[in-house]
Amino acid sequence: MLRARLSPLFAALLVVTAASAQTAAPLSAPKIAQAYTASRHDQLTAQFEEFLRIPNVAADPAGLRRNAAYLLQQLRAHGIPAVLLAAPELPENVPPVVYGELKVEGATRTIVFYAHYDGQPVVASDWATPPFAPVVKEVDGEARVYARGAGDDKAAIFAQLTALTALQAANFPLKANLRFIWEGEEEAGSPHLEQILDEHRKLITGDVWLVCDGPVDQTRKQVILFGARGDAHIELTVYGPEHPLHSGHYGNWAPNPAMMLAQLLAGMKDAEGHVLIPHFYDGVAPLGTLEQSALAAAPVNDERLRREFALGSSMGGGEHLLTLLNQPSLEVTGVTAGKTGAQATNSIPATATASLDLRLVVGEQARIQQERVVDYVRSQGYFVTSGEPTVEERTTHARVARMVLDEGEAPLRTAMSLPIAQEVVKAVESARGSVILLPTSGGTVPLDAMERASGSPTLSIPIANHDDNQHAANENLRLQNLWDGIETMAALMAMN
Amino acid sequence: MLRARLSPLFAALLVVTAASAQTAAPLSAPKIAQAYTASRHDQLTAQFEEFLRIPNVAADPAGLRRNAAYLLQQLRAHGIPAVLLAAPELPENVPPVVYGELKVEGATRTIVFYAHYDGQPVVASDWATPPFAPVVKEVDGEARVYARGAGDDKAAIFAQLTALTALQAANFPLKANLRFIWEGEEEAGSPHLEQILDEHRKLITGDVWLVCDGPVDQTRKQVILFGARGDAHIELTVYGPEHPLHSGHYGNWAPNPAMMLAQLLAGMKDAEGHVLIPHFYDGVAPLGTLEQSALAAAPVNDERLRREFALGSSMGGGEHLLTLLNQPSLEVTGVTAGKTGAQATNSIPATATASLDLRLVVGEQARIQQERVVDYVRSQGYFVTSGEPTVEERTTHARVARMVLDEGEAPLRTAMSLPIAQEVVKAVESARGSVILLPTSGGTVPLDAMERASGSPTLSIPIANHDDNQHAANENLRLQNLWDGIETMAALMAMN
Repeated sequence: MLRARLSPLFAALLVVTAASAQTAAPLSAPKIAQAYTASRHDQLTAQFEEFLRIPNVAADPAGLRRNAAYLLQQLRAHGIPAVLLAAPELPENVPPVVYGELKVEGATRTIVFYAHYDGQPVVASDWATPPFAPVVKEVDGEARVYARGAGDDKAAIFAQLTALTALQAANFPLKANLRFIWEGEEEAGSPHLEQILDEHRKLITGDVWLVCDGPVDQTRKQVILFGARGDAHIELTVYGPEHPLHSGHYGNWAPNPAMMLAQLLAGMKDAEGHVLIPHFYDGVAPLGTLEQSALAAAPVNDERLRREFALGSSMGGGEHLLTLLNQPSLEVTGVTAGKTGAQATNSIPATATASLDLRLVVGEQARIQQERVVDYVRSQGYFVTSGEPTVEERTTHARVARMVLDEGEAPLRTAMSLPIAQEVVKAVESARGSVILLPTSGGTVPLDAMERASGSPTLSIPIANHDDNQHAANENLRLQNLWDGIETMAALMAMN
Repeated sequence: MLRARLSPLFAALLVVTAASAQTAAPLSAPKIAQAYTASRHDQLTAQFEEFLRIPNVAADPAGLRRNAAYLLQQLRAHGIPAVLLAAPELPENVPPVVYGELKVEGATRTIVFYAHYDGQPVVASDWATPPFAPVVKEVDGEARVYARGAGDDKAAIFAQLTALTALQAANFPLKANLRFIWEGEEEAGSPHLEQILDEHRKLITGDVWLVCDGPVDQTRKQVILFGARGDAHIELTVYGPEHPLHSGHYGNWAPNPAMMLAQLLAGMKDAEGHVLIPHFYDGVAPLGTLEQSALAAAPVNDERLRREFALGSSMGGGEHLLTLLNQPSLEVTGVTAGKTGAQATNSIPATATASLDLRLVVGEQARIQQERVVDYVRSQGYFVTSGEPTVEERTTHARVARMVLDEGEAPLRTAMSLPIAQEVVKAVESARGSVILLPTSGGTVPLDAMERASGSPTLSIPIANHDDNQHAANENLRLQNLWDGIETMAALMAMN
């Protein structure tokens, strides 16, 4: 099924390769990828921008469908009979999983490449340039492309497609079957991924799942992650007067939900960022010895990161970032109460809301961790409800909180001692030289759902730069990361 | 200068009055006002709506100028040679003070009526109906008109104009000169009022300034206030990473400004609302005996208010609302950090901002009170700056806060024992029966600036309903408060 679609330039390159074949070994997969991209930066950047131009946020299901259709067509252009996977009982508007398999005759192994085409929500007014009008800008003398999804995670999909183009153009003899699974709900917590995978178990199994998402190390060195923290959210709203009250006529008297929320949140962590909620660290599974050694060998970038982020300190009582990522976390990702700045009014707000993000590590479960936070709020004298409280509930309780919990995603860690894991490490090293091995990614990918549905171990091979403003305004990809990533993907596709 | 502009209906009414004059005393000023409004509710409501339709927010200087022009024309229609007061060195776009004097021959006294035509900022999306498209709705069987400024404070201006119309129509013999001073910057803290008044000292003096602003008691009984709390604001921003960071990849490690702000705010007050900032209550002048007696005689509406606002508790350790208003306050009127709800992203925000409203009582000064808060923030380990912190400041300090302080307004209290104060009380009682006397309004009016410029004592005569959503969305005026207020204004205009 491999098709030769050689550009004249590439054909010329092959001639050179063939000519030198008498004295040298044939080019390796990463070298082929490197040769292919080196002469096509502008053309490939333009192709990537075409992909980035398709809006990919959950609020725009039609945009997500356009992404899926685009990828379907891309896979088919590589000779892969791609399909959109859905499950019979899914609600309407669930973005489909784009699936394709490249079968290789005589292959005994199947390698699964996972990535996601959806992006985090955007607040366009926060962006320097519109999130879906990609532009290339120079940053510290290096080109970056700016758009939602540039780093997280369209870069990985584009790298896989381009690596395949390069290998096909060179008629490179693949040895393993390749499967591509690109989902469209990762940033929404992959609520239907497991259901879709379960429906298609035979299609999606493999010897290893390579999860291509997230950033490489802050030194720009390649990383392989053997697990990821889980994730769970809580939307916490504290109630004051039924409507905002004049802060002069009622100040000192009316309970102020902004202050009540501040007091609730303040009690959740100490000044060093240690979580004070009872049982928060219960059950955390300790790291094995291989994992501890890998962590000890990993670079310590803390000082450099503090400078990069203009931080005068970091949390954790002196522990390094990479160590702290093996612990559960609680972060306040948003607080909203009344108005500030030019819109501020002299009012005691009616409600105050905080968005909490809980990251989980192996040994913890989302719902149990969320309930620990609920228990803490109750212990502070709050009547806790999951719905909008009634007037009676508000009037009969001195403190009322609404807490909305999501489903959450479980944490996972693959043992570094696994033979297939060792082979993946070798393949990546063949493209990128020495590689940093980390037991746990701080960010979350639905590894647990993948493992359960596919029965395959998972490893994460990120390619984006760490400073890509992932999840925030002005998301970007350093283009060198794209070229490097294409080589890495080519090396993985060439595995036995 | 009184002009007879009688409607046919009113002429008929006067005939009746004249006919009964042989057996009864002539109608009092409040009775004349009552007779005038009783038969014209629809017409007067429509006139009031015409006034409310003119946008009156600081963000719209042209709208404020249209209000001023409208009022100028209204005064002139009453035969008053009205002018717009400005001061030579004022910045452009300062909304003018509308001024007019009705001179009465032989008058030995001058009564000054103050009100303001500007309103608080609006967030139109929070309103059930647009803020400048007034509509009348029934609430608990009573008509209210909804619009920004309906209660605060266009009602007072409209009541004064209509009372004057009624008295002029009835050829009522006024005894004192009447001065009208309507400003357009009250909700912005009256930053130029004193300067404008200082420029026109001869025009604006009087035997008493009647400040017609704010709400009556929650029992709907008339109130006279002998003072008002001062007001000062602080915009407090706490800094985290230079841009938002992924809460998975940096959670546990990056200082989170939303949490830091929560911890800062939480330490400012205890669970009962008592302010813990050192020296916060220093210098508070105690109430005199007349004032203490008046306070003891005032109705206690706390339980009813808690029900009305759906509150299960109130702050202050059991002290009543009216007592607590004689203490300084600190309220968080807004908090903004990251995003919540559907817009929430998995990010550690770069900054977190709180708007703080400090109310002051006699014996305190705005800047000193603000500096106490600044000192508290410093005592929590913060480097405090008034401007946007530089990268170097952010990198060299573990905790960085920006604190922006406004000019503030001083508190003031007129002694209840003052003879002119006693006369005002009698006039209001002639219209509204027994009246509640309060030493201090919780809300702020620039009494101090008025007293200093005019040399006149000030008394506040509010007419709006307390439940008018003043300063918030869906501001409204209960129309019965307007009719009552017109009678009260007529009684005050009729003073010796």
